[in-house]
Amino acid sequence: MKAVILLSGGLDSSTILYQAKADSCDCYSISFDYQQRHRRELHSAFLVGQKAGVVEHQVVNFDLRLWGGSALTDDSIDLPQERSLNEMSQNIPVTYVPARNTIFLSFALAYAEAIAAQRVYIGVNALDYSGYPDCRPDYIQAMQEVFRLGTKQGREGQPIEIIAPLINLKKTEIIQLGNKLGVPWDLTWSCYAGADVACGVCDSCRLRLAAFAELGLEDPVPYA
Amino acid sequence: MKAVILLSGGLDSSTILYQAKADSCDCYSISFDYQQRHRRELHSAFLVGQKAGVVEHQVVNFDLRLWGGSALTDDSIDLPQERSLNEMSQNIPVTYVPARNTIFLSFALAYAEAIAAQRVYIGVNALDYSGYPDCRPDYIQAMQEVFRLGTKQGREGQPIEIIAPLINLKKTEIIQLGNKLGVPWDLTWSCYAGADVACGVCDSCRLRLAAFAELGLEDPVPYA
Repeated sequence: MKAVILLSGGLDSSTILYQAKADSCDCYSISFDYQQRHRRELHSAFLVGQKAGVVEHQVVNFDLRLWGGSALTDDSIDLPQERSLNEMSQNIPVTYVPARNTIFLSFALAYAEAIAAQRVYIGVNALDYSGYPDCRPDYIQAMQEVFRLGTKQGREGQPIEIIAPLINLKKTEIIQLGNKLGVPWDLTWSCYAGADVACGVCDSCRLRLAAFAELGLEDPVPYA
Repeated sequence: MKAVILLSGGLDSSTILYQAKADSCDCYSISFDYQQRHRRELHSAFLVGQKAGVVEHQVVNFDLRLWGGSALTDDSIDLPQERSLNEMSQNIPVTYVPARNTIFLSFALAYAEAIAAQRVYIGVNALDYSGYPDCRPDYIQAMQEVFRLGTKQGREGQPIEIIAPLINLKKTEIIQLGNKLGVPWDLTWSCYAGADVACGVCDSCRLRLAAFAELGLEDPVPYA
């Protein structure tokens, strides 16, 4: 069975790629160069996809800096740093990018329909301390309806299915799953900044580091 | 009130732009260069937007030829020509572009949230002889749920509303509405081909010509 995998090169999306492999899917990965703060994660996505043996890896280019609205697409908005997990859990953070997952899922849907894939894997996670609105189960369910009604394949045959295996897992559980599946953590990239080594202080680094520490494991990615 | 208008430069989208103006909206138009067969329609979108006095006109670039799947994004698939309205009504045509309206609405949603707009206007039309799955009322309703659940604005305040004023109108009724609103038909472009003058034989030209003829009106766009 063919599956399209939304692959950002981070911990979560790399895990779902390996999950799709374990589910015996032929994997077609897709990444997005949307003029985010750095392209380091795109290189990781390519390396992880290559390592996993994807059939094809697409990179779609567009510019979300046209209107900004996020710390990831507007350099005048600072990245939050050194926040505790508790602080992270309070509000929707400035790293929220308007409608990003809707855009990503739309392209994945188009790609999936064009190659007659049956599934789209996405690594969203509602328990992440992020509070992102477009990572929650009710949102994924709404997109599933769009997948069913908005395509020829959905109207005339079996709708393309959204698979979100991490949606109710804690970060530590995702790492445990990834370990079982053999995810090459050293090739992944989670840091929002994107220097030669991970910053260790942005929300994404802190969440990742805390989870590895809680499990008593070492994160093989080098930190500043 | 701010509104984002999906403006392709065709008859339908130009009409909804003028409808949004009539609804007293400040209009922000958005067009897409997705490597479609021609860029002629993008020029029309710009001209119509300018004429209508939009506050801002965005053009988002991306490449749907990466995977094709449509006569509009794959030159090896011929455009249907000289089909009767009856033939057009039979099936979902090869000009269907996988998930196109979902991609368009996703970007419109992102833009709308970034500028704190309250509405997104789209010129879909279920009675068009096209049978496109992503032009029907149930699909628009599903996207409305995504607008509500997939954004910060939808979760914390008033969801951005999708306005589809043409969805149940016939082509002749759209032209009558546009005439009332003062749409500059001469600046619009509907032809799928995109030469110096409209071909007159593609589905889009034939649908448009038939509607003008039925009303006893002359289409000011030059035809081959």
